[in-house]
Amino acid sequence: MIICKVIGNVWATRKEEALNGLKLMIVCRMDITTEQEHESFVAVDCVGAGIGEPVLVVTGSSARKAFDNPNIPVDAAIVGIIDGSES
Amino acid sequence: MIICKVIGNVWATRKEEALNGLKLMIVCRMDITTEQEHESFVAVDCVGAGIGEPVLVVTGSSARKAFDNPNIPVDAAIVGIIDGSES
Amino acid sequence: MIICKVIGNVWATRKEEALNGLKLMIVCRMDITTEQEHESFVAVDCVGAGIGEPVLVVTGSSARKAFDNPNIPVDAAIVGIIDGSES
Amino acid sequence: MIICKVIGNVWATRKEEALNGLKLMIVCRMDITTEQEHESFVAVDCVGAGIGEPVLVVTGSSARKAFDNPNIPVDAAIVGIIDGSES
Amino acid sequence: MIICKVIGNVWATRKEEALNGLKLMIVCRMDITTEQEHESFVAVDCVGAGIGEPVLVVTGSSARKAFDNPNIPVDAAIVGIIDGSES
Repeated sequence: MIICKVIGNVWATRKEEALNGLKLMIVCRMDITTEQEHESFVAVDCVGAGIGEPVLVVTGSSARKAFDNPNIPVDAAIVGIIDGSES
Repeated sequence: MIICKVIGNVWATRKEEALNGLKLMIVCRMDITTEQEHESFVAVDCVGAGIGEPVLVVTGSSARKAFDNPNIPVDAAIVGIIDGSES
Repeated sequence: MIICKVIGNVWATRKEEALNGLKLMIVCRMDITTEQEHESFVAVDCVGAGIGEPVLVVTGSSARKAFDNPNIPVDAAIVGIIDGSES
Repeated sequence: MIICKVIGNVWATRKEEALNGLKLMIVCRMDITTEQEHESFVAVDCVGAGIGEPVLVVTGSSARKAFDNPNIPVDAAIVGIIDGSES
Repeated sequence: MIICKVIGNVWATRKEEALNGLKLMIVCRMDITTEQEHESFVAVDCVGAGIGEPVLVVTGSSARKAFDNPNIPVDAAIVGIIDGSES
């Protein structure tokens, strides 16, 4: 999983039916070890995350496991809101 | 998922039978946070996207979930046409 | 999927039994939007592609869907020979 | 799999129920061949790894195979503590 | 699949039970088209590869297909020893 910051949201009227009702958030990877600029991508919010919050994002086929319906075309999901970290 | 722009299409007469009838679009990742140049790739269109439109693309095994037949050799699908975003 | 050029082939006498009889081609990603140099990798040919031809390559678990036996250790397959493109 | 160093841990009160009780560690890839700086990411610890230890991390869908419940939204798992290597 | 060179091996006493008995090799990607330095990673040897040999490595979920037990937490496997190539 990667630590990301929620930076916005996106909407699409014409879309796959299975995506109806899902919250599509724009997230950007945060990194504590490198200063590299990261690309943003879209993740479906499963935990009620707000703009600016640091979140835990799972990608790939494992992202589908965050949903009751495992047959949705989703490859990234926000599965936690990060309270703190130690390193 | 990633936000891409549809920049063209590609055709192949000799191809895997399961790909027959699918619209193969050339897409290019768009990014609002970095200025990095992105490579283009091919995604199957599921929502009737046109050249120049910003779209939502799902990749990997999840791309197959956008099709009635989950056994197609497809690793990228256009699953939404983006109307707007806020960030 | 990505657009690649077939640049060679590779052979291996000692290999996983499930790979017997498969054509292992060396391919290199082609890109129309960036000038970046691309690494070559090995994809199994499913459509009779020849050296020098532009092809459509599917990667990851979806590559296995191009074969009758879905239980082969293959993560990249050539699934189409590209006739043309427009962008 | 990749060799990583455990550099910290992260906690999230609001999270997917399936993640309850899992130890979320921050890990950073180590490489003996390049000097490249690596990004950190989050992996679930399955073997009792401690901060500073070199570990073996499996990513993608295979990470789920390290758990009794294969339906968890996890894409990276620590599956071994490295005692030594030879190269 | 990618062409790699076996450069060493790694051992871990404390590890996931399903990894017992597997040979964990350190491999490094070889590339004939670019001069880029590549990172090393760990792949499970399925074909009896030795240090220094060029091998074919399959990654992701497809790596699990190289084993009798498809439920092991492995994301990279050596599935062939390369005898030669032409490009």
